[in-house]
Amino acid sequence: MTDNRVEEKVAVQSEESRSQSRRAFLKGSAAVAGGVLFTKAASADYDPKKAVAPYAGEKEITEPLQDGPWRKRLGFGVRRYPYGVPSPYEKDVQRRTLEWLTPDSMASITMTPIQSLHGIITPNGLHFERFHGGAADIDPKTHRLVIHGLVERPLIFTVDDLKRFPSISRIHFIECPANGAMEWKGVQLNSVQWTHGMMSCVEYTGVRLSDLLKEAGIKLDKARWIIPEGADASGMSRSIPLEIAMDDCFVAYAQNGEALRREQGYPIRLVVPGCEANMWVKYLRRIKVTDVPLQHREETSKYTELMPDGTAQRFSWYMEPNSVITYPSPDYRMQGPGKYYVRGLAWSGRGKVAHVDVSFDGGKNWHEAHFTSPVLDKAWTRFEIEWDWDGSEAFLMSRVTDETGYVQPPMPQMRAVEGTNNVYHRTAMVTWRVHAWDSKNGGLIENVQY
Amino acid sequence: MTDNRVEEKVAVQSEESRSQSRRAFLKGSAAVAGGVLFTKAASADYDPKKAVAPYAGEKEITEPLQDGPWRKRLGFGVRRYPYGVPSPYEKDVQRRTLEWLTPDSMASITMTPIQSLHGIITPNGLHFERFHGGAADIDPKTHRLVIHGLVERPLIFTVDDLKRFPSISRIHFIECPANGAMEWKGVQLNSVQWTHGMMSCVEYTGVRLSDLLKEAGIKLDKARWIIPEGADASGMSRSIPLEIAMDDCFVAYAQNGEALRREQGYPIRLVVPGCEANMWVKYLRRIKVTDVPLQHREETSKYTELMPDGTAQRFSWYMEPNSVITYPSPDYRMQGPGKYYVRGLAWSGRGKVAHVDVSFDGGKNWHEAHFTSPVLDKAWTRFEIEWDWDGSEAFLMSRVTDETGYVQPPMPQMRAVEGTNNVYHRTAMVTWRVHAWDSKNGGLIENVQY
Repeated sequence: MTDNRVEEKVAVQSEESRSQSRRAFLKGSAAVAGGVLFTKAASADYDPKKAVAPYAGEKEITEPLQDGPWRKRLGFGVRRYPYGVPSPYEKDVQRRTLEWLTPDSMASITMTPIQSLHGIITPNGLHFERFHGGAADIDPKTHRLVIHGLVERPLIFTVDDLKRFPSISRIHFIECPANGAMEWKGVQLNSVQWTHGMMSCVEYTGVRLSDLLKEAGIKLDKARWIIPEGADASGMSRSIPLEIAMDDCFVAYAQNGEALRREQGYPIRLVVPGCEANMWVKYLRRIKVTDVPLQHREETSKYTELMPDGTAQRFSWYMEPNSVITYPSPDYRMQGPGKYYVRGLAWSGRGKVAHVDVSFDGGKNWHEAHFTSPVLDKAWTRFEIEWDWDGSEAFLMSRVTDETGYVQPPMPQMRAVEGTNNVYHRTAMVTWRVHAWDSKNGGLIENVQY
Repeated sequence: MTDNRVEEKVAVQSEESRSQSRRAFLKGSAAVAGGVLFTKAASADYDPKKAVAPYAGEKEITEPLQDGPWRKRLGFGVRRYPYGVPSPYEKDVQRRTLEWLTPDSMASITMTPIQSLHGIITPNGLHFERFHGGAADIDPKTHRLVIHGLVERPLIFTVDDLKRFPSISRIHFIECPANGAMEWKGVQLNSVQWTHGMMSCVEYTGVRLSDLLKEAGIKLDKARWIIPEGADASGMSRSIPLEIAMDDCFVAYAQNGEALRREQGYPIRLVVPGCEANMWVKYLRRIKVTDVPLQHREETSKYTELMPDGTAQRFSWYMEPNSVITYPSPDYRMQGPGKYYVRGLAWSGRGKVAHVDVSFDGGKNWHEAHFTSPVLDKAWTRFEIEWDWDGSEAFLMSRVTDETGYVQPPMPQMRAVEGTNNVYHRTAMVTWRVHAWDSKNGGLIENVQY
């Protein structure tokens, strides 16, 4: 039942790996000492007598390691949590909202605690929320998706129907265009959860929208727009140009491997990579193909940009390149002069992040950071840079450049173009002021316009 | 405060994007019609009169779309779940254990429902569990990591100390070497949760072990092994050769962006990419650098492979390339003859997955699948392949080849090398028997040796 290629490979490979293991088993240390990596470790720049890692704050052992109580008793068993929860010691890491920001909780938002996140994946439990009529609790068995309008065959799909189409899994950021809105007016909130927390980054799985539109026989000679609509009380809908719809959009039924969460549109939502979150219609129930855009309240009264000349600009679909330093940030206090690893997030709705520069002196001098995570298309990218803080006042800023060459502007620059009326798409740099260590505010970090 | 490069770029870029938006705003459809992607969509192979997507099971609309009750009432508000939970309709997607598999829940395992997962990320709540003394509930403030033995400076670290070192974020699979153990004896369990669920794949963030060892001044002239030890009741420890320790290992404090879960070793665990899970010591409290391996019970009585000649083989560190078809699988029933997209997971402890072949006839003929997720080093890779099922009996198998050229063996092949005593590292192919549609078992899918 197997071809020769397999049998040879298997024979060779298993012989190899087995004998390797045996070598290690029989004359372990010698074999290991000869290892390639051992040589690498012993590279010229390494002197065991010197501390080589950059942070020398840790202490030498003065007494034996103490046993904790968990050493002397059994923990909890495997049937305790069929679906796991975070440690109680992490209870402060949660989604939060500003009570004064919205009149009620049904048309409101909570923000992701990005000051506490690591890497580029947001756990589903901490994904930011934006509701227009509360989060619907939909029975997936009864939910349907209809595609109609300028198509040959108006179609209706169950969620199971959609799972039988070819699938795609991609890690993308999703961001509300109002992220950072308060900074427009100079409201300086001292947490990155408030300044940049209206976004998250997860892995979505679903079916390409172009496959569904073609299945319905979309009439490409007349069709110019699609109008997706939600099944919830708000009936959210937006006008999306066909060129975006036929590009990399998909109808997602999963986030981070499991079913979508209700807060994110369970059982299905539209994914519009790189574009503002309100286009990613949740509880998706209908897609109408049209030749003209809808004039929906969400693209007239809301999600439009009031320009200096008094005209309202619609259809700023893409989220421009943006970045923020998450540590040190106003959520933390400096722990004294010394070595720090400055960390943050960079992302672009136009593609991949190309590079990130960091300034410690409010933009006078810039230093290129390196990436500590995979660099993916239209996804968060985690950057890091070494900083020797001498304890004097400092102004931390990050500036992203994406693969299109767009460079993140400073705030005065953006204000000069946008004026003072707009509350959306504020993608300018922010500045964290680090107070001098010897001042009465030693270690304090503040959000300031710069 | 800004250099000219910024100002120019900003000026140009914002002018561009603004005017683009205005064009769309003023003469929207025309502008869009001229879009590059519109041309792509209208490619020769597309005829709106024909259904082009492969699954034609959906129905044309015969009546207007019905409103669900969630259309007529508000959902729940934003302060309901500071930390979110899955929809109640997903309650059957959970970690499970076989009651008869272990004597009690403190030294036991639960398996990830991989039949229900999508993409390559496992949500933290569904990460498989393997406890040797229950899951410890450690206070991170009091937890310490000690590095001692063949080093110049024995050191002790708090969890905060570790976070001040350079960080690294990587998506890796973790797998218990007993995954698939029951298949060795021909126990044919009809769920991929039982046959392959002792594994998960998440994004880890932490500090490189090589940085910590160098910080302690590891004596590379004498050091050959490290002995990590857990702070929990089981005091799990393993011998790890220095060449692996100095390679891509790291001490992780985060999984999928948030703090490690208690079930996975909160507050810190060792990450040993590509190697068997018991080496990834949880609740890590101590690393001793030695010149000889430990003779711990977990590498003598357990996690050794009893070979045909009666000798016990230790130190089979790496998880060899492996793959499994998760849909259709014994967890599902076929829904009648027609088009299916066969999906599964492939992974290798030796590096990246190169390609995956799928057979519908028990290995007589093979067809190359394509990948629907990013392809990352030592991480799950999601594959998919189109299948026109004519309703007759079929035998589904997947076969991975990794970048080292290793080809996953069929079971008889592996048994010929390994014999019948071993219960670990069973990475051979499995076979799903699809019953003929017209038989009394129409749609049934069974796990069979083949």
